[in-house]
Amino acid sequence: MTETMRAVQVVGYHQPLEMTELPVPVPENPWDVVVKIGGAGVCRTDLHILEGQWQEKSGVTLPYTIGHENAGWVAAVGSAVTHVAEGDPVILHPLATCGLCRACRSGDDVHCETSLFPGIDTHGGYAEYLRTSARSVVKLDASLEPAAVAALADAGLTAYHAAAKAARRLTPRDTCVVIGAGGLGHIGIQALKALSPARLVVVDRNADAVKLALSIGADEAVVAEGKQVDEVLDLTGGAGAEVVVDFVGENGSTSEGLAMTRQAGDYHVVGYGENVDVPTIDLISAEKNVIGNLVGTYNDLCDLMALAARGAVTLHTQTYALDDFQTALDDLDGGRVRGRAILVP
Amino acid sequence: MTETMRAVQVVGYHQPLEMTELPVPVPENPWDVVVKIGGAGVCRTDLHILEGQWQEKSGVTLPYTIGHENAGWVAAVGSAVTHVAEGDPVILHPLATCGLCRACRSGDDVHCETSLFPGIDTHGGYAEYLRTSARSVVKLDASLEPAAVAALADAGLTAYHAAAKAARRLTPRDTCVVIGAGGLGHIGIQALKALSPARLVVVDRNADAVKLALSIGADEAVVAEGKQVDEVLDLTGGAGAEVVVDFVGENGSTSEGLAMTRQAGDYHVVGYGENVDVPTIDLISAEKNVIGNLVGTYNDLCDLMALAARGAVTLHTQTYALDDFQTALDDLDGGRVRGRAILVP
Amino acid sequence: MTETMRAVQVVGYHQPLEMTELPVPVPENPWDVVVKIGGAGVCRTDLHILEGQWQEKSGVTLPYTIGHENAGWVAAVGSAVTHVAEGDPVILHPLATCGLCRACRSGDDVHCETSLFPGIDTHGGYAEYLRTSARSVVKLDASLEPAAVAALADAGLTAYHAAAKAARRLTPRDTCVVIGAGGLGHIGIQALKALSPARLVVVDRNADAVKLALSIGADEAVVAEGKQVDEVLDLTGGAGAEVVVDFVGENGSTSEGLAMTRQAGDYHVVGYGENVDVPTIDLISAEKNVIGNLVGTYNDLCDLMALAARGAVTLHTQTYALDDFQTALDDLDGGRVRGRAILVP
Amino acid sequence: MTETMRAVQVVGYHQPLEMTELPVPVPENPWDVVVKIGGAGVCRTDLHILEGQWQEKSGVTLPYTIGHENAGWVAAVGSAVTHVAEGDPVILHPLATCGLCRACRSGDDVHCETSLFPGIDTHGGYAEYLRTSARSVVKLDASLEPAAVAALADAGLTAYHAAAKAARRLTPRDTCVVIGAGGLGHIGIQALKALSPARLVVVDRNADAVKLALSIGADEAVVAEGKQVDEVLDLTGGAGAEVVVDFVGENGSTSEGLAMTRQAGDYHVVGYGENVDVPTIDLISAEKNVIGNLVGTYNDLCDLMALAARGAVTLHTQTYALDDFQTALDDLDGGRVRGRAILVP
Repeated sequence: MTETMRAVQVVGYHQPLEMTELPVPVPENPWDVVVKIGGAGVCRTDLHILEGQWQEKSGVTLPYTIGHENAGWVAAVGSAVTHVAEGDPVILHPLATCGLCRACRSGDDVHCETSLFPGIDTHGGYAEYLRTSARSVVKLDASLEPAAVAALADAGLTAYHAAAKAARRLTPRDTCVVIGAGGLGHIGIQALKALSPARLVVVDRNADAVKLALSIGADEAVVAEGKQVDEVLDLTGGAGAEVVVDFVGENGSTSEGLAMTRQAGDYHVVGYGENVDVPTIDLISAEKNVIGNLVGTYNDLCDLMALAARGAVTLHTQTYALDDFQTALDDLDGGRVRGRAILVP
Repeated sequence: MTETMRAVQVVGYHQPLEMTELPVPVPENPWDVVVKIGGAGVCRTDLHILEGQWQEKSGVTLPYTIGHENAGWVAAVGSAVTHVAEGDPVILHPLATCGLCRACRSGDDVHCETSLFPGIDTHGGYAEYLRTSARSVVKLDASLEPAAVAALADAGLTAYHAAAKAARRLTPRDTCVVIGAGGLGHIGIQALKALSPARLVVVDRNADAVKLALSIGADEAVVAEGKQVDEVLDLTGGAGAEVVVDFVGENGSTSEGLAMTRQAGDYHVVGYGENVDVPTIDLISAEKNVIGNLVGTYNDLCDLMALAARGAVTLHTQTYALDDFQTALDDLDGGRVRGRAILVP
Repeated sequence: MTETMRAVQVVGYHQPLEMTELPVPVPENPWDVVVKIGGAGVCRTDLHILEGQWQEKSGVTLPYTIGHENAGWVAAVGSAVTHVAEGDPVILHPLATCGLCRACRSGDDVHCETSLFPGIDTHGGYAEYLRTSARSVVKLDASLEPAAVAALADAGLTAYHAAAKAARRLTPRDTCVVIGAGGLGHIGIQALKALSPARLVVVDRNADAVKLALSIGADEAVVAEGKQVDEVLDLTGGAGAEVVVDFVGENGSTSEGLAMTRQAGDYHVVGYGENVDVPTIDLISAEKNVIGNLVGTYNDLCDLMALAARGAVTLHTQTYALDDFQTALDDLDGGRVRGRAILVP
Repeated sequence: MTETMRAVQVVGYHQPLEMTELPVPVPENPWDVVVKIGGAGVCRTDLHILEGQWQEKSGVTLPYTIGHENAGWVAAVGSAVTHVAEGDPVILHPLATCGLCRACRSGDDVHCETSLFPGIDTHGGYAEYLRTSARSVVKLDASLEPAAVAALADAGLTAYHAAAKAARRLTPRDTCVVIGAGGLGHIGIQALKALSPARLVVVDRNADAVKLALSIGADEAVVAEGKQVDEVLDLTGGAGAEVVVDFVGENGSTSEGLAMTRQAGDYHVVGYGENVDVPTIDLISAEKNVIGNLVGTYNDLCDLMALAARGAVTLHTQTYALDDFQTALDDLDGGRVRGRAILVP
C-alpha cells in the first residue's frame, strides 16, 4: 500500500491553490533524494504564478505542487547518493541541475543547460514530501532548523551570490553601497559584512529599514528622499563607491546606482524592473562595469548555510501550518508578513 | 643662448593650426624627461579639438602645442630619472600621472586623480621636442622605430587594454567576438590572438576589413549585413560568445553585442556613441556583464610594446613631414589615410 | 547470449599480463557509459604496476584489466546520460569522480573524495570495451582520431594542467622557463605557447629534445650541461623568470628551478623524484612560491582537446595491435618507443 | 642658523648606540618629506644590527641613525608632494621605493629594484626628525596616534600582507590555521578575522598566547604540545585546512604546517629559520602550494591603517622617552617588553 501525503497544487491560473492527497514520492533513480519538508517559503513569485505570469515561461503541466524555497529532512535516497543519509536536515538549492554540461562541470551550475526548477516547472515543496536530485541537497549543520532557513534557499541565495561576487574586490579602504534594505538587501548586508572588510553604506526610502540595516552591520545609512546620490558622494569624498549593489532595480535606482559608482567601479544589478540606460561614453570615460546577478550556485548555498550556522546571517520568519497556505498567501499579498512567511507541514 | 624648435599650435578654435618657433624644453625638476619627437600620430581627436569640442573639458590655455600620440628618443632627463637615458628610443603613455594617488600606487594609473594629458590639456608632440614626466616614458626595444609605433600610444593602447581585460577569462573552448575591424579593432584582434587561446569571430560591415581581419588572426568572420546576430549565434551553437568586444559602440552595435553575448558572458564597451539600453531583467536572467574600457595603463603600454617588438602587433602608417601637418589633417578629414597618419619632424 | 571481448589483465605481480575473454560490459546504472576502445596508451606506470609498486596503494583485486589512457567511441549509455550518444568519439578523463563532493561541485574534480581510477584500481582500457562514468567522457571533435589522442588523457593532461595554471599570470613581458622537454614537457611547451604570450625558454640535457622544443614553440633553449642556471639568469637580465615549470623534479632540478625563479615568481613542480629543500628565509626574502601540480580536471581535458582539434597540440604515437601488448610493453621498457605507444584493439 | 635635533646612531658594531646632535633634515628634492617622529618601534632587528648581522647585507656607512618602524607628523614637504601636508599624522612604509621600475608601477613596490630601507641602509627614526620619500608616507586617520601604530609599519605590515594574500581564497566553509600567536601572529589573526569569513584555528606552544588569540578572533585554538597536527586534522574532518599561515618557520613548524594543509591548499611561510624540506611527490599528489611572504606593499599599509582606524587591529605598546633608548633595548633583550617597545622623542 502506497503512503499518501498532503500537497498544495496549482490547478488553474487565476484560481485558488488546492490542497490534495498524493502518493509520497520514492527514489526512482540512483541520484534521487526524497525530502520530508520542514519548511517551505511563501514568496511573491508564488502569487505571480497564480496570476499566470510564469505560465508560458515554465510550460508546466497543471496540476502541480507549488513552492520553490524548501528545507527539511532526508526521507529516502537513491543508490548513488553518498553525501546525505536518511534523517539529515537539508536545504534544497532551487535548481535540480544536470551535472554534465560545461556550466555544471565548472561549479557554475545555475547556468546549467537542462535544469529543473521544482515549484516552478515541476513539483515543489508546499507538501509533506518532495523528490529532488542529490545535486540540489545541502546538508545543514545540526544547529539549524529547516523551517528557519528555508527562505534562504532562493531569495537569500540571490542576495548572497551578489554579495559574494561584490566582496571579491572589496578592501578595507573601499566603500560598498547597498541600495534597498528589504528582503534581499537585508541578507545582502549581513553577507557583505561577513565576507568583506569594506565600509557599508545602505540606501533605502524607508527610515525603519535603514535603522534595521544599521543594527545588522551597515556602517552608514542614507534615507533616500531625493538627495541620496549627493549624500553617497559626500560620504566618499565626491568620488563614489568602489561597488554598488542594487537590490531594487526600478524607480530610478539604476541611474542613481551608476552615479554613486566610482571610476573603475562595479555596479551590481540584482533587483529588476526598469532598464539600465547609460551613454557608452560614460561607461568608457569612467571605466565602470554593470554586473548582472542571478541566483547563487550550489556552492554559494553551502557557503550561506555556513554563515547561517554561526549566526552571521539570520532571517525573521513567520510560520503557518501547511493547511493555512491560503492565509499565508493572503497575508503576503496584504503586506501583513514581517520577514518571510514559511509553511510548516 | 636658448635653442629653438618648431611646434604646431592651436591658436584659436575653428581656425587652422599654426607652426611656430619655441624654445627647446629642458628638464625643470628631477622627474622630467625631454623627448626628441620621432613620430606624432595624427588622430581624429585632433580635428575635434580644432572644432572646439574639447575646449571646455580640457580647459587648456591657448596657444598650445597639439599631438597626443608620441614617440621618439630621450634628449635629456632630470636628476631622479633612472629607467631611461639620453638616446633611448621611447614611446609616451598619453597621461603624465601623479604617482602618489591610490590609483597610481595600484598600477591603475589611468585613473590617476591629477594627471596631465599632453596634446590635450598641455603641450603635446606636434613639435621637435616634448617635455613630459618620467612616469610616461616606456623604453622601446632596439628593433622598433618610434615613428612606426607612435600611433599605438593612444588608439592602440585602448584596443590593447580591452583585449587584455577580455583575454583574462578566455579559454580554448571559448569564443570571442570582435565588433569592428577598423583602427582599434585591427589592434584588438592582433592582441587577442597573442593573449588568448579563444576562437576569434570578427564582425564588420566592411567586407575588406573582414578579409583583413582573417589575415591577421581572426578564425571566423561575419560581414554585418543585418543578420550578424543570428550568424554569431549559429557559430556558437545558439548560445552566443563568452566575450564580445565592441569597438564600435553606435548604430545598434550595443544591443547586437549584448544579444551575441552568452549567459554569464562579458560584453566590453570600447567604441562609443549610443546608449547601452537594456532591461535589468535581461542582465539578471542571463547574468551578463557590461564592461567599460578606457585607455590602457603604463603597464599595458609596456606589454603592447613587447608584442610589437616581436612582430605580434603591427600597424600600417603613412608618414608626413612635420611641416606638412595641414596636409596630414586634410587627408585624415578627407578619408585619404590608410592606417594611421604620422608626423615626422 | 552475452557478447564477449578480449581484455589484457594483471593476473599477478612480477608475472606477465594475460589476454583473456570477458563479457562486454553494459550500462548498469543511469550514469554509465560503455566505450569501445579506439586506443589505449601504454605508459611507464603500467610497467610499475606489474612490478607491484601500486599493489598496496591501489588495493585492486586481481585479476583486473590494465590501461589508464583511453579513447574510443561510445557504445552504450545509461538512461541519465545526455551529453554523449552512441557512436560519438570520446576521450576518457583518467578519474571517474563522484560529482557530489565539494571538489566535484567546484570544477576541481581531481580532488574528488571518492573517485575511481580505471586501469589502476578498477578495470581499464587494454580491452575492446570499457565501462566508465558519464562524468569521465569528453566528446571529441570529428577531426580527432581516438588512437591519436589517447595518450593525452593522462600524461598530456598533467602537462596541460600545469601549463594552464602557469599561464594565468604570464604577460608579454614575462619569461616562462620549462625544465624538461620530454613527454610531458613536449605537451607543456605547446600548451604554454597556445595559452600565454610569454617568452618560453626550454632547458633540457638532451640537445635533440632542445632542438625539437624550438620547433614547437620555444623562443630560447638551453642545453643543460651544468651552467643552465646562469644561462637562464643571463637571458632574464640576471633576475630570473617570472614562472618556472619543472617537468623533471629530480637530479637537482628543484634547486636549479628555484634559482631560476625571479622574485615574486612561481616555481611549478610537475615531475617528481627528489625533495624540494629550501631555506624559509629564501622563500620569504624573494617571496617565491612553490606550486604543486596534479593531473588536470575534466575541464582541462576539454580545453586540451579543443587545442588538439585545431592542431595546436600534437603528439607522436606508435601504434600496436591489442594482441601485441607484450611487444609494446617490451619496446617501452627497452626505450624503443618514439613518442607514445598506443594499443589499438 | 640650522636647527638641530637629537638622533640615536650606530657608531660601531658590538658597541652601544650613541645619542648625538644633528641638523634637522630639510626637503632636498621635490618628492622629499620630512617627518617629525611621533614614535619609533624598537625591534629585535635593531639588536641584530648592533651585533653586526646586517653589516655586509646593508653596506651602510657608520655612523647612521637606526630605527625602521616610524610614524609621526609631516614637518615639511618637497614641491611635488600633493598627498600630504605639514601637520598631517603619518606612518612610514619601511621602504623608500623608486616608483619607476616594473614592480613599483604594478603596485608591488616591495619588489622595487632600487629601494632604500631607512634605519637599515640609511638614516632611520630613532631621532626627532626623519627625511624620507613621498612614496613612503601614509596619511593617518585623525583617530590614530603615531606612537600607537608605529610598530605596525614593519612587523604588523608583514603579518597583514600574509593575511591579505591568504584571505583571497577563503570562504565561509574554509578553515585557516595560524601557527604562532606571538607578535606577528597576533596581528595576523586580527587581520584574517577582518578580511575573511573562514574559521580560524590558532596553534601556539604558549597557553596564554592561545587564550589571547581566542579573545581577538580565533574560533578554535590548539596548544602545541606534540599532537597539534592530529588536533588540526580532527578539527577539519581529517582533511586539513584550506590555508595554513605559519608565523613561526622553525622548530618543525614547516613540516607540521604542510601536514595540516589540505589537498589543493596553501601553506604560507612568514616566519623563518628552518628549511622547507618536502618530497616533490607529496606536493604533487596533494597539489599543495608553498607560498612565500615578504613585508606588505604601500597599499597593504594603507589597508592596515584603515583597519586600525576602526579598531579592527590593535597592538599593545610600551613607550619610552627617546633618551631612554638603551633601557628600551635592554628591556627588549631581557624579555621585559609586553607588546612592542616604542621610543617617543
